[in-house]
Amino acid sequence: MISVVILGAGNVATHFFKALRKSEEASVIQWYNRSLDTIKHFENTVAITNDLAQLKQADVYILAVSDDVVAKLSSQLPFNDRLVVHTSGCVNVSDLDKKHKRGVLYPLQSLSKDAAIDFSNVPICIETLDKKSYPLLKKLAASMGSPTKRVNSPQRRVLHLAAVFVNNFTNQLYRIGHEITESEGAEFDLLKPLILETANKIQTMSPYMAQTGPALRNDKKTINVHLKLLNNPQHKDIYNLLTDAIQQTHGRKKL
Amino acid sequence: MISVVILGAGNVATHFFKALRKSEEASVIQWYNRSLDTIKHFENTVAITNDLAQLKQADVYILAVSDDVVAKLSSQLPFNDRLVVHTSGCVNVSDLDKKHKRGVLYPLQSLSKDAAIDFSNVPICIETLDKKSYPLLKKLAASMGSPTKRVNSPQRRVLHLAAVFVNNFTNQLYRIGHEITESEGAEFDLLKPLILETANKIQTMSPYMAQTGPALRNDKKTINVHLKLLNNPQHKDIYNLLTDAIQQTHGRKKL
Repeated sequence: MISVVILGAGNVATHFFKALRKSEEASVIQWYNRSLDTIKHFENTVAITNDLAQLKQADVYILAVSDDVVAKLSSQLPFNDRLVVHTSGCVNVSDLDKKHKRGVLYPLQSLSKDAAIDFSNVPICIETLDKKSYPLLKKLAASMGSPTKRVNSPQRRVLHLAAVFVNNFTNQLYRIGHEITESEGAEFDLLKPLILETANKIQTMSPYMAQTGPALRNDKKTINVHLKLLNNPQHKDIYNLLTDAIQQTHGRKKL
Repeated sequence: MISVVILGAGNVATHFFKALRKSEEASVIQWYNRSLDTIKHFENTVAITNDLAQLKQADVYILAVSDDVVAKLSSQLPFNDRLVVHTSGCVNVSDLDKKHKRGVLYPLQSLSKDAAIDFSNVPICIETLDKKSYPLLKKLAASMGSPTKRVNSPQRRVLHLAAVFVNNFTNQLYRIGHEITESEGAEFDLLKPLILETANKIQTMSPYMAQTGPALRNDKKTINVHLKLLNNPQHKDIYNLLTDAIQQTHGRKKL
């Protein structure tokens, strides 16, 4: 049984706690947060503390805290040579204090606070600075049901960056679609099957091969109709920039 | 039984033919294409022709041809007062020759030539210029298993435009995610569950409410790390523009 202490009380901490509670190969023996209020309603299921001096001995300490706090908190931990990991996509593994065995468990998924999470859809990117810790972290992540992958810090950073493109920026395109349709009293709901199909298609086909539409066909007539329909100058800029990007990717002539 | 003649042999024509063949309330009695070669292998299942003078009498003529050809082909049809519809997102219903009863059946989905299509995921936007034709087209679309919606020409045009944002442009963001991850030897596959989750989330939540990430949080440190990681100037432009769009949508301060 792998003993775990979780530090932090945000989305990642909470979802890790819930997933590890169900794990048969790991046990969360303590939950630390600076403010006890946030985790108070878990006190009947796990030992809670707001005092670093009271931290129990464990196999793994998971620092699920904001990027800014990782380095400082890791140096404040009152022990050495134990396995301490963070969960950030953007923080280097070597930012953890070097008095520890160091690693990363980065869940590559959007973890909303309230939504139930199926960890089989949450790939966990694992990094360790010592070889011995890797199998332990792999077992821990797998015990939550996650697919796992060894990923170094530069790779994790680009995955985090790419996640901004495919998640936050994509969601903003959905938002623009919402604005455009509502402007004519059309229903955004009609686009939902297409949105799902677009995401489904690249599960088995490269985005390069999956591309279609007026930019790819260099269909200037449709592109001009679209540009005339867009009243919001920023929407127009986005239309032009992404049309251009598609045409560069696919070697089309510039408009 | 609604009798149908299909004109054209592209993706939409082919998928409509296949879906209508299975329908119990409609029957494709003839398939026209300028070139017989493309539809030759269907000649044992349906009457085919490349001669407009040979078109049979039918309840509906579906012009599933490219936007440029709709008006001209409709005027070449050697009859009057029959129901003629096109399938385009971008062409006005009144571009059909006024000698006909006129309408539109616009399937709002990405219809790849080879993929099997489940029409329950293909909303069909219906427009008619005469009231009597609407129930017929609704019955026809529903008989393929599609959800249907009455949509006028300006609404259909913005849906078509919004589809470019949520489908083609989103797919280009996936492509950029692919390029960025591969540049460090990381696996694009790790992003696939996140891509699906992003599309799933807005099936029940507005894109506005679903937004997360560094742009929304105005997390300048992460944004700067990301901008430094991007070597491709166009990727940088897209990052800046969409970050700005998210911040405008959510009333964040400009960077």
